Amino acid sequence: MDIKITLTKNKKEKPDYNNLPFGVYYTDHMFEWDYTEGIGWHDPRIVPFHNLDMSPCCTFLHYGQGTFEGLKAYWGKDGEIRLFRPEKNMERLNNSNDRLVIPRFNAEDGVDAIKKLVEVDKDWIPKGKGTSLYIRPFIIATDIHIGVHPSRTYKFMIVLSPVGSYYKEGINPVKIYVEDEYCRAVRGGMGFTKTAGNYAASLIAQETAEKRGYTQVLWLDGIEKKYVEEVGTMNIMFVINGEVITPALNGSILPGITRMSAIELLKANGYKVTERKISIKEVFDAADKGQLDEVFGTGTAAVISPVGELMMEGKTVIINDGKIGPISHLVYDTITGIQSGKLEDKYNWVTKIETK
Amino acid sequence: MDIKITLTKNKKEKPDYNNLPFGVYYTDHMFEWDYTEGIGWHDPRIVPFHNLDMSPCCTFLHYGQGTFEGLKAYWGKDGEIRLFRPEKNMERLNNSNDRLVIPRFNAEDGVDAIKKLVEVDKDWIPKGKGTSLYIRPFIIATDIHIGVHPSRTYKFMIVLSPVGSYYKEGINPVKIYVEDEYCRAVRGGMGFTKTAGNYAASLIAQETAEKRGYTQVLWLDGIEKKYVEEVGTMNIMFVINGEVITPALNGSILPGITRMSAIELLKANGYKVTERKISIKEVFDAADKGQLDEVFGTGTAAVISPVGELMMEGKTVIINDGKIGPISHLVYDTITGIQSGKLEDKYNWVTKIETK
Repeated sequence: MDIKITLTKNKKEKPDYNNLPFGVYYTDHMFEWDYTEGIGWHDPRIVPFHNLDMSPCCTFLHYGQGTFEGLKAYWGKDGEIRLFRPEKNMERLNNSNDRLVIPRFNAEDGVDAIKKLVEVDKDWIPKGKGTSLYIRPFIIATDIHIGVHPSRTYKFMIVLSPVGSYYKEGINPVKIYVEDEYCRAVRGGMGFTKTAGNYAASLIAQETAEKRGYTQVLWLDGIEKKYVEEVGTMNIMFVINGEVITPALNGSILPGITRMSAIELLKANGYKVTERKISIKEVFDAADKGQLDEVFGTGTAAVISPVGELMMEGKTVIINDGKIGPISHLVYDTITGIQSGKLEDKYNWVTKIETK
Repeated sequence: MDIKITLTKNKKEKPDYNNLPFGVYYTDHMFEWDYTEGIGWHDPRIVPFHNLDMSPCCTFLHYGQGTFEGLKAYWGKDGEIRLFRPEKNMERLNNSNDRLVIPRFNAEDGVDAIKKLVEVDKDWIPKGKGTSLYIRPFIIATDIHIGVHPSRTYKFMIVLSPVGSYYKEGINPVKIYVEDEYCRAVRGGMGFTKTAGNYAASLIAQETAEKRGYTQVLWLDGIEKKYVEEVGTMNIMFVINGEVITPALNGSILPGITRMSAIELLKANGYKVTERKISIKEVFDAADKGQLDEVFGTGTAAVISPVGELMMEGKTVIINDGKIGPISHLVYDTITGIQSGKLEDKYNWVTKIETK
């Protein structure tokens, strides 16, 4: 793909890299790519970061036809810039597009756009521990039309944000609240996609959990309200009696790339990993019997987030004395080690960006 | 509420009012109202219709935290401009806001804003049969932040669009496809709200239905896939053996204002109206027994839309020989009669707009 590059004449000042919040600062450039019915995706370009000139009647503002992705670029100690499995993000974005009736794009072109944009803004990649350059590809419907129909025009954009830890807890265990009233997604819905509406639906439960002192919400299935689904920003894994159990992908759970990677590396390290339905009762029962060794979330934003406490209907379970456990540690160290270039990329997960 | 008005100096040309599509043309002005945490809703204003200057990192573009409404202004044969129960739309918008963690606003102020904007752009209200001025109030989260949290700033806007019939069929019966794979909403979700994500979720089924020659989709409940919910742009009513039956509001169905009005006027006219769970099997069984007298949708866009055909899993049911039935006709004539001023407003549904 031939990406036209227009560099900014007004570079922004960098933020304080020792104290980076998540998703607040943006780099000097962005990527744009237009879709027009009958023409396809056209005019891929890197341009100075700029505001959008958007009609208030842009269909996305009313009907939310859009999809997105999230991944990161890491500056290694060896001076190399690494992406973690970006082809998986582009594949998932196309899968999300299918559900949202948005035209597919060439996934390799998507990876190229990410690589080129990160290269252009590489002086924005932070180098401190736990920091990275967050990459947000997203697509929105752009027809100027208030009517419930798939758009005939779209815009694919990528923006970059230098970030610190997603959770203020960092790698310290978080407290999770089991949500038994609200629902995030259901079979036949959009749960397996990254689309705005899934996150809009989750805000009320997230808000309630935070007010009660919990970091995140654990969602149960929308049908029986019995089976564990995901955390909304992470997939979830339970270590019960040494076996790693995670909910099977069922259409209402996001197929996380960190989830997939954790499963692969744990299996390669000889652990038993099972993807199946797991009820919240089974989790609490295991805790009662002293068999709930570890719980951890997996996701791009936090990589691994150990869960130190689960709460449901007033009942609290403390996991591994509220400390990170050995399996969580192994997954965290391996994935972050590969991302930073400290460990050999033996699963072939890394895409390096040429810096000349 | 003191609304500051800035009139345009460049009035747009009017479209062909004899051939108005839905939601394509917009008037000369729009309403804007900002919310800032710690300040509340502030600076209500009517300004020339203009594009938004929006950061690509505006939180709405990523997480869809927004709500909207739809209602219409009608130009009566008596020269009066009428709104139909606008206070109900503003009440529902606040209810949607609660679910989406968006701050409430004063509903009377919302009605005032609608009235004032319609008055300013009153020369845009079409006068032909079946035409009206569609009013779209909507609220979007405007924080410049990529992180899953409720926004601290919002924008409430109203845009106006002169419209013809929503369905090309007009008052002629539409064909409806019963969707048994995809899901629009579920208990605990956002189904009872008007929010972008609900409509994004519906597009794929709508697209499939249209390809098969159907106008709209009838959604079943997300849990058992047995019970009728709504059409996505309309609520649905069945007349079985003379009794009007419509799905009870259960949290996953939009509480339609035309639905509410149809129920009220049918009861006032001596019809038996029941709001309860109704399975799709009951509907098809009634058809088999020759007892499915009529089916019709209710909604702001189309007012009443008779259903001439239902299809599920290859089985087709033709209703009332594919013609509009007497109860559908009564509801349509009464509501449109009140909206246009041809009939007395005996239920006190109309809000008139002063035109001096």
